[in-house]
Amino acid sequence: MSSIGIVIAQSLQFTAPLVLQSGERLADCTLVYETYGTLNAERSNAVLVCHALNASHHVAGRYTEPDKSAGWWDNLVGPGKPLDTDRFFVIGVNNPGSCFGSTGPMHTNPATGRPYGADFPVVTVEDWVDAQARLLDALGIAALAAVIGGSLGGMQALSWTLRHPARVRHAVVVACAPSLSAQNIAFNEVARRAIVTDPDFHGGHFYAHGVVPRRGLRVARMVGHITYLSDDVMASKFGRQMLHEHPLYSTQEIEFQIESYLRYQGDKFAEYFDANTYLLITRALDYFDPARAHGGDLSRALAAATAGFLVVSFTTDWRFSPERSRELVKALLDNRRDVSYAEIDAPHGHDAFLMDDPRYHGMLRSYFERVAT
Amino acid sequence: MSSIGIVIAQSLQFTAPLVLQSGERLADCTLVYETYGTLNAERSNAVLVCHALNASHHVAGRYTEPDKSAGWWDNLVGPGKPLDTDRFFVIGVNNPGSCFGSTGPMHTNPATGRPYGADFPVVTVEDWVDAQARLLDALGIAALAAVIGGSLGGMQALSWTLRHPARVRHAVVVACAPSLSAQNIAFNEVARRAIVTDPDFHGGHFYAHGVVPRRGLRVARMVGHITYLSDDVMASKFGRQMLHEHPLYSTQEIEFQIESYLRYQGDKFAEYFDANTYLLITRALDYFDPARAHGGDLSRALAAATAGFLVVSFTTDWRFSPERSRELVKALLDNRRDVSYAEIDAPHGHDAFLMDDPRYHGMLRSYFERVAT
Repeated sequence: MSSIGIVIAQSLQFTAPLVLQSGERLADCTLVYETYGTLNAERSNAVLVCHALNASHHVAGRYTEPDKSAGWWDNLVGPGKPLDTDRFFVIGVNNPGSCFGSTGPMHTNPATGRPYGADFPVVTVEDWVDAQARLLDALGIAALAAVIGGSLGGMQALSWTLRHPARVRHAVVVACAPSLSAQNIAFNEVARRAIVTDPDFHGGHFYAHGVVPRRGLRVARMVGHITYLSDDVMASKFGRQMLHEHPLYSTQEIEFQIESYLRYQGDKFAEYFDANTYLLITRALDYFDPARAHGGDLSRALAAATAGFLVVSFTTDWRFSPERSRELVKALLDNRRDVSYAEIDAPHGHDAFLMDDPRYHGMLRSYFERVAT
Repeated sequence: MSSIGIVIAQSLQFTAPLVLQSGERLADCTLVYETYGTLNAERSNAVLVCHALNASHHVAGRYTEPDKSAGWWDNLVGPGKPLDTDRFFVIGVNNPGSCFGSTGPMHTNPATGRPYGADFPVVTVEDWVDAQARLLDALGIAALAAVIGGSLGGMQALSWTLRHPARVRHAVVVACAPSLSAQNIAFNEVARRAIVTDPDFHGGHFYAHGVVPRRGLRVARMVGHITYLSDDVMASKFGRQMLHEHPLYSTQEIEFQIESYLRYQGDKFAEYFDANTYLLITRALDYFDPARAHGGDLSRALAAATAGFLVVSFTTDWRFSPERSRELVKALLDNRRDVSYAEIDAPHGHDAFLMDDPRYHGMLRSYFERVAT
């Protein structure tokens, strides 16, 4: 197994506006994407990788030599890796509204000549899937061998099977849920309030003020980060370890390692992530609920799906617990769909979907063997 | 069972400074407290009730007629109630550093003539227990029949049995843990960062600026509130209910009932709670760890306790899970202490300790029967 090496991002500008679920139209939309491996003559070996909250089209490989630029799922995607680029043509795409190159709130609103800011239209998982479908059209790919995603990416994979069932043979849905719970929405709302009430947010038009709502972004990331890790992994990595031998007896200075870690994560995030994107992406998570149009009946909602499914959950994931994955599996089985389900005993919580746990990667490897045949 | 009726708060000013764990001295310390029922001739029927984060000395009864002024544990404490004021002399006391009357950060620092603000010394659970012991001295109470508290109040009850073992016959420790986990500390730190980074915090000296760091307090309360409720009760009370028939497709307007509820809780809290107190009280929670002085060995730490114990946990409490209460029970049993343990199957999460669940209150009632005899 080796890395895919140096990769280059490409882009596609849509000629027609993207019509969104809200009814709004996104004009001048550009998607940034990457591809790895070779599309076969039958154009039948394409696998689309959907990203979650803070990731991008840069799934695998590196831009330049430093380690930092490695793709976010580089441990999974590459020559000889579980999602093997010697066999599959793998596509990573940045979703509209994100902040890594595709049209987003920091770009110019053609209607005003100024950055969209808070006026960027609200985008949904379904909108992203439709934008991704346009990319496939441009690449001449009628149908995907598979679509794969973790967390919010898993929601996109699921949505693909409902909106474009004829265009997807397999869906791999990892660490996901068929909709957010009240508690999930609550955490998103805390993060949004932290950002929106930061005086540097300026109603979402902070670009014009030359500032960034860093305070809000930091708090948002800290609260998010807590939900990505399991209680267990926090206990084993940090526990009650203190920075100093004797307590400082201070409310504002760092006493515990976990505080240091969270502040670092918050600071790092506030340096690169866009505040309006954070609002948009958490909202897309909130809205996703395919059962809603069917009176809350998930089984009826999934009747449209014809793909084969691999659903994977992690025992210590309390953000999207195994119970939520089992809801999805049950609804698929109610429709007599072809479903494999794996509940991986992993300590890392929600973040486990990004790790290279051997059982997890072994499971993905064998599923992709099946997809390839 | 009837309410205790109209009650009046009293206060006690210490003549000598309170020497704190940090080594600092708190001069001019006043404690506000309430008592219910009558101290018997033997002075043997006193029960001390310790408060948690946002509560006070006002445990039971009312100040005036409106419902709002009812004590925070009025469902538990009163004539004929599980903690029966016809039999017990019950004491509620506001801890130093709080914002309900006892000396706190909004009061004048005798050293400067200005409000303490962020210079209020860091107080610990142990400091509170020592202050409470001084109140007992003033009331002529050599030993408590029992000390009771939930959450942070439970930590005080536990600390009583270690610092003043000869002065406490029984300890009732509800919805508690022998120390915070890394995840617990992490949530506290998010809340503190939200407050401290609010520009209206002014380094903790916001009183002089005539402002309150409301934005930070709101976010702090919202994140706290999520941890007080179980995932289940949030799902059953709010689920994915939306405010409007059709989505607004907005990132800032309220879409879901849970958002409305959390914002309301945050707004209400920011109106009455002091930001410096929030920092102090969450820090007291972080620091509490009786095992620390014994190399992390809780059993050794609890060897000093001689009281009888009732430990109560709630199945859906994920802030201080039953597992944490069982740690406490195990350490007490290792010391062959007299311990009763109840794990109450209740849906409300951590907040269950404030509810009048019949199994829970039945358990407390029978334990206090035992305390009385």
